[in-house]
Amino acid sequence: MAATNASGTTAVRHGSMRDQVLGLEIVLADGSAIRTGGRVVKSSAGYNLTGLFVGSEGTLGVITELVLRVHPVPEHTVAVSAVFGDVEAACGAAAAVVAAGVALQRCEFADALTVACVNRHFGLRLVEAPSLFVELGGGRASVDADLVALRALFEDAGCSRFATETTTEGRNRLWAARHRAGEAILATAPGKIKKSTDVTVPVSEVPAAVRRTREQLERNGITAALLGHVADGNYHTVFMVDPEHPEELAQAKRVEAAQIEHALSVGGTCSGEHGIGIGKIGYLEHQYGPAVAVMRGIKELLDPNGILNPGKILRSEPV
Amino acid sequence: MAATNASGTTAVRHGSMRDQVLGLEIVLADGSAIRTGGRVVKSSAGYNLTGLFVGSEGTLGVITELVLRVHPVPEHTVAVSAVFGDVEAACGAAAAVVAAGVALQRCEFADALTVACVNRHFGLRLVEAPSLFVELGGGRASVDADLVALRALFEDAGCSRFATETTTEGRNRLWAARHRAGEAILATAPGKIKKSTDVTVPVSEVPAAVRRTREQLERNGITAALLGHVADGNYHTVFMVDPEHPEELAQAKRVEAAQIEHALSVGGTCSGEHGIGIGKIGYLEHQYGPAVAVMRGIKELLDPNGILNPGKILRSEPV
Repeated sequence: MAATNASGTTAVRHGSMRDQVLGLEIVLADGSAIRTGGRVVKSSAGYNLTGLFVGSEGTLGVITELVLRVHPVPEHTVAVSAVFGDVEAACGAAAAVVAAGVALQRCEFADALTVACVNRHFGLRLVEAPSLFVELGGGRASVDADLVALRALFEDAGCSRFATETTTEGRNRLWAARHRAGEAILATAPGKIKKSTDVTVPVSEVPAAVRRTREQLERNGITAALLGHVADGNYHTVFMVDPEHPEELAQAKRVEAAQIEHALSVGGTCSGEHGIGIGKIGYLEHQYGPAVAVMRGIKELLDPNGILNPGKILRSEPV
Repeated sequence: MAATNASGTTAVRHGSMRDQVLGLEIVLADGSAIRTGGRVVKSSAGYNLTGLFVGSEGTLGVITELVLRVHPVPEHTVAVSAVFGDVEAACGAAAAVVAAGVALQRCEFADALTVACVNRHFGLRLVEAPSLFVELGGGRASVDADLVALRALFEDAGCSRFATETTTEGRNRLWAARHRAGEAILATAPGKIKKSTDVTVPVSEVPAAVRRTREQLERNGITAALLGHVADGNYHTVFMVDPEHPEELAQAKRVEAAQIEHALSVGGTCSGEHGIGIGKIGYLEHQYGPAVAVMRGIKELLDPNGILNPGKILRSEPV
């Protein structure tokens, strides 16, 4: 796969990957290849096939090349760790920053359990409380100004500790720990397997949604970590499930069901970035109802023999 | 139509409208209605039907409601007028700012003819030379810092005059003139009609693309204005055509053809935001070849009787 740089040189920013893919080469079910999009961020040339194929989980065609939008490496970058009294306050701080329009390169939430797992697994000494890990980037003066605004918004939202990390090594250590949080969480529960799920809600709804999930977990004595890309409204629940005890998986699925039900009630979605696969087919039908028939029509059009990742996203046979 | 505010309160920023639509209600050809997307910026729930319908020019369904992503009203806003020696320098300055990652609320290019028409029609006194009109917004300190960076980048690119406009009235006057530039251009050519076309190229290719078009116009003695959203790579050519002289329209079409040919050769697109309609059907086929058959399949799936805006985007009968 080739990632072509259309305007700058660096990695992709936070936000939906769907907005970052500019073009594709796709091999269709009949073996022919098409190209979609281009090397441009704006186009109104026919139907947006790029958007249709991205996130289709291999069910419509095989992506063999993609053109990504990349962003310049900022002149100056600062990472921030901020500690809050509870999950609702932490997520509320993220929502406040989004509402204020402060440009974030990254914004990651982790609950106390996630931070504790990361500390133990990577030998870090982060405060084991609900936290936001944020990255700001840009010109030095601009980043300095944003940092002041960020701190004021966080403190208004109840931030009790606000620490910055300006060295590349320090930032890399922090982000490596975040990116490998799933591994850290699982390492604290030997013999268990990981079951994770994610939803997205409007950013302003994240604080209440995460609080509800946290409360449900505590009410039922379930050990699960909450973390996510909360500036996008997207959060994950990571359960550690004993494969010998099916009731643990059933319990996790009940929490997932409640999460999705709530997400849909506030205009959210049953899957933020994990896709539908097999496990969320029922939720997709619940979320979109008759629009699923349109999806099925497109699937049958592009894969009449059902050879492309069969059984994913859509039932093999309509209900 | 209802525009639902998902996280803040204000207008849509520059960039592709496709990234700003979060969800739709659509009435299909059979009279049934579906909903796509939601009130979220990130989703991986099935096929991205929102992206498919946005920009489909009414050929797949009728959009009856849409949810837009909006952005907070910035605490502080500054508009900038910057004057350059030639069109290539002006567009090069815009590309440099994009490459440096300075966040722009708006970035509009206008050539000398456009500025002259706007001056005459609205009684303004802008310098009649290739210009960029830019808007920065955010916290005051952050905007001040970005302004310094912007000025340095512009001056490096040959900016000879850099003026700021901080009052709301002054900014509104400037943007009103820009938004009504088409009207101003036409007013200078009584009895003529407007023929406009647009392409998008990678941002780094805009300076050369605009220079090529400017040179072609001058070589052939054609009066046409160049302007556009160059930070998105998107620029427009506005011809004033005498309906009594078909050769003028033919001449405009030759310039358009050269523009599109060049745009496609550098990974661009034959239409940035004007769509395909009838006039660009041949260019769409040239740009995408076999992908147009996929578009046609989707059209036939969703509009089997061809009742939705027939003849647009795709030929009524395949070639």
